[in-house]
Amino acid sequence: MYDRQQLLSELVQAANTKIVLLVMDGVGDIPAENGKTPLQAARKPNLDRLAKESDLGQTIPVMHGITPGSGPGHLALFGYDPVKYQIGRGILEALGSDVPVGEKDVVARANFATIRENIVVDRRAGRPSTEESSKVVKKLAKAIQSIEDVKVSFYPGKEHRFVVKLTGEELDDRLSDADPQKEGKPFVYTQALAKEAEKTALIVNKLLDEIRRVLSDEPKMNCALMRGFSKYPKLPQFPEVYKLKAAAIATYPMYRGIAKLIGMQIVQTGNTVKEEFETLKQVWNDYDFFYVHVKKTDSYGEDGNYEGKVHVIEEVDEALPTLLELKPDVFVVTGDHSTPVALKAHSWHPVPLMIHSRYTRRGLSNAFDEFECARGSLGTIYAVDVMGLVLAHALRLEKFGA
Amino acid sequence: MYDRQQLLSELVQAANTKIVLLVMDGVGDIPAENGKTPLQAARKPNLDRLAKESDLGQTIPVMHGITPGSGPGHLALFGYDPVKYQIGRGILEALGSDVPVGEKDVVARANFATIRENIVVDRRAGRPSTEESSKVVKKLAKAIQSIEDVKVSFYPGKEHRFVVKLTGEELDDRLSDADPQKEGKPFVYTQALAKEAEKTALIVNKLLDEIRRVLSDEPKMNCALMRGFSKYPKLPQFPEVYKLKAAAIATYPMYRGIAKLIGMQIVQTGNTVKEEFETLKQVWNDYDFFYVHVKKTDSYGEDGNYEGKVHVIEEVDEALPTLLELKPDVFVVTGDHSTPVALKAHSWHPVPLMIHSRYTRRGLSNAFDEFECARGSLGTIYAVDVMGLVLAHALRLEKFGA
Repeated sequence: MYDRQQLLSELVQAANTKIVLLVMDGVGDIPAENGKTPLQAARKPNLDRLAKESDLGQTIPVMHGITPGSGPGHLALFGYDPVKYQIGRGILEALGSDVPVGEKDVVARANFATIRENIVVDRRAGRPSTEESSKVVKKLAKAIQSIEDVKVSFYPGKEHRFVVKLTGEELDDRLSDADPQKEGKPFVYTQALAKEAEKTALIVNKLLDEIRRVLSDEPKMNCALMRGFSKYPKLPQFPEVYKLKAAAIATYPMYRGIAKLIGMQIVQTGNTVKEEFETLKQVWNDYDFFYVHVKKTDSYGEDGNYEGKVHVIEEVDEALPTLLELKPDVFVVTGDHSTPVALKAHSWHPVPLMIHSRYTRRGLSNAFDEFECARGSLGTIYAVDVMGLVLAHALRLEKFGA
Repeated sequence: MYDRQQLLSELVQAANTKIVLLVMDGVGDIPAENGKTPLQAARKPNLDRLAKESDLGQTIPVMHGITPGSGPGHLALFGYDPVKYQIGRGILEALGSDVPVGEKDVVARANFATIRENIVVDRRAGRPSTEESSKVVKKLAKAIQSIEDVKVSFYPGKEHRFVVKLTGEELDDRLSDADPQKEGKPFVYTQALAKEAEKTALIVNKLLDEIRRVLSDEPKMNCALMRGFSKYPKLPQFPEVYKLKAAAIATYPMYRGIAKLIGMQIVQTGNTVKEEFETLKQVWNDYDFFYVHVKKTDSYGEDGNYEGKVHVIEEVDEALPTLLELKPDVFVVTGDHSTPVALKAHSWHPVPLMIHSRYTRRGLSNAFDEFECARGSLGTIYAVDVMGLVLAHALRLEKFGA
């Protein structure tokens, strides 16, 4: 298969059009016992009205049957082959927390856990408040500045989470997770997955011991687990590939992290959907492409909270006029994957997709939901193909061939 | 494009779930003059009820427009790229007849024909009974044990068919068929399709002459045609790739052959669909994955027998409760290709697909037929993507990426 992104990039032309990509994280679902998905159950007059004037379809994030993490789910939407570009969770967490990452760094996603007699009894240390855990992160930063010749930095995150950064020569990120994954299991050290990573593994394991020593007097946060060791990946930069001045509006670090990785500008915003749309309005004149991320559809899916998920969809719909008043030339509503309430997890199910512009084959669909999308005018497509359609509707692609 | 099977294999995880893949050979069709396909015409309350709770879609076996043989049609369903893995018909026939095939062997699918003055007047020698033709195969085996330094073995098959195996050094299977394909045409020898196959071609052609000499006193079976010369292909083994204990239940040798080639266990069964489902019940506790093959939908399609095809579908539906009582976690109903009655042959048409599990996006479809499948929740997918969906519904795939 040819490189889709490369082909698009060769055809990109300038235009005076604005694009909004609204990602409702994990929005796709399967019918509950009432026979309806949250999208079907939600009162959403604005989205349904748009559906009547839009092209609908459904996307396959990576491959049929494959359940994507947030990284691959988003990269695909941005037109990056998610199998070609695989990114560690550590780097996403780091970038989202505004941790500067350079070429000599390896970062990991860490979290406080509670350990008793070498058994991890609580992988989240009782979910401390962000304030509480930040204090303990500061304590670590004060006590541990380096392991051998490797500099160690700690950055606080939300609740039990924080980021660890190692800076040194010849560090390698091919390391297994230092995390038993389940509670009631013994603490585990990292292992090198390649010969070149053996030094880094030694450093990490010494660091894990040091952390336990420093935290030995903590009642709950007395141990750290580390996952997703990763170096800074080199990705094609979105603004250059598509010739788009791109802004990201997201309330959660992870998603700002993904956007930053591909060169989008991160715009500060509030915590609600309404505030995100207000932010969009404020920076409307400064960019061509706006990635707006709504997190809570996914969160409620993961919690198995049907009503909560319905409510977030209604919240988006209610706030939508603020966005629509800006009259984007192309307005896309979709998800990065499905997060069915019944599964309480990301899933492989196709994701609803709606593309609104003045050039749609409108009139086929009546509402924005999984079933209308399954029978929509776009059919079932790979998520990596969405950017091509978006650019086309924005009249930002030249003709291919004479 | 990355290797789909490889990617799936990396994500496979163990689970305590059972999968049934029911292949109704050639089930897809096009409407007859009554406006209905056999699937639409058949009384099939069980399949239609399932459709209401299932994900429906349609598969492209190899590529849009390509009519697959049984080998590619099945390999794709099992998740093997049918263009990457091409298998000769000879090897399938041999394996299905329990002919042991090793690395130094070349096998071919042979059949008795009637020849008069070097013209093939009946390509099936009047369709002798299996008993009759077995006697003639024995006669050949007794008269011909080798050609030059190559050992020759004969194995009886059904009716006019048998298998020829050559064993020797540097044999090559790149040979054209020794078969005029149509009656009323002169006998043809094989030709080497590559320089390295020239020796094998010489051996085969001497063998063809020898056979005619030995059979010269036979009234009808006085000649042999040979097709599908093939060596033993090395394929990834299904149980290892997917971590599934897999059983094959099929009444015809060809399909057992395909299953054996990829490492499935072949389970002895009877001749009817009912007996096949009874067999499934008997071995239910011994495996995770069950491939069940129904042959006659294809046979009647090839015969142009509409009523016969309708009847087989009804027979499957009637026997279905035996299968459904086992409560498979994932139950797939599909075909390896379409065999429209009007064409009396395999065809390129998309193939109906139904996946039933507790995680389907149920409620969109009302019946199991070509039209409902074309508008189903899965869309139009490549057959090679079915295994990913099957594993996903069986909760046997880890998340891809963070």
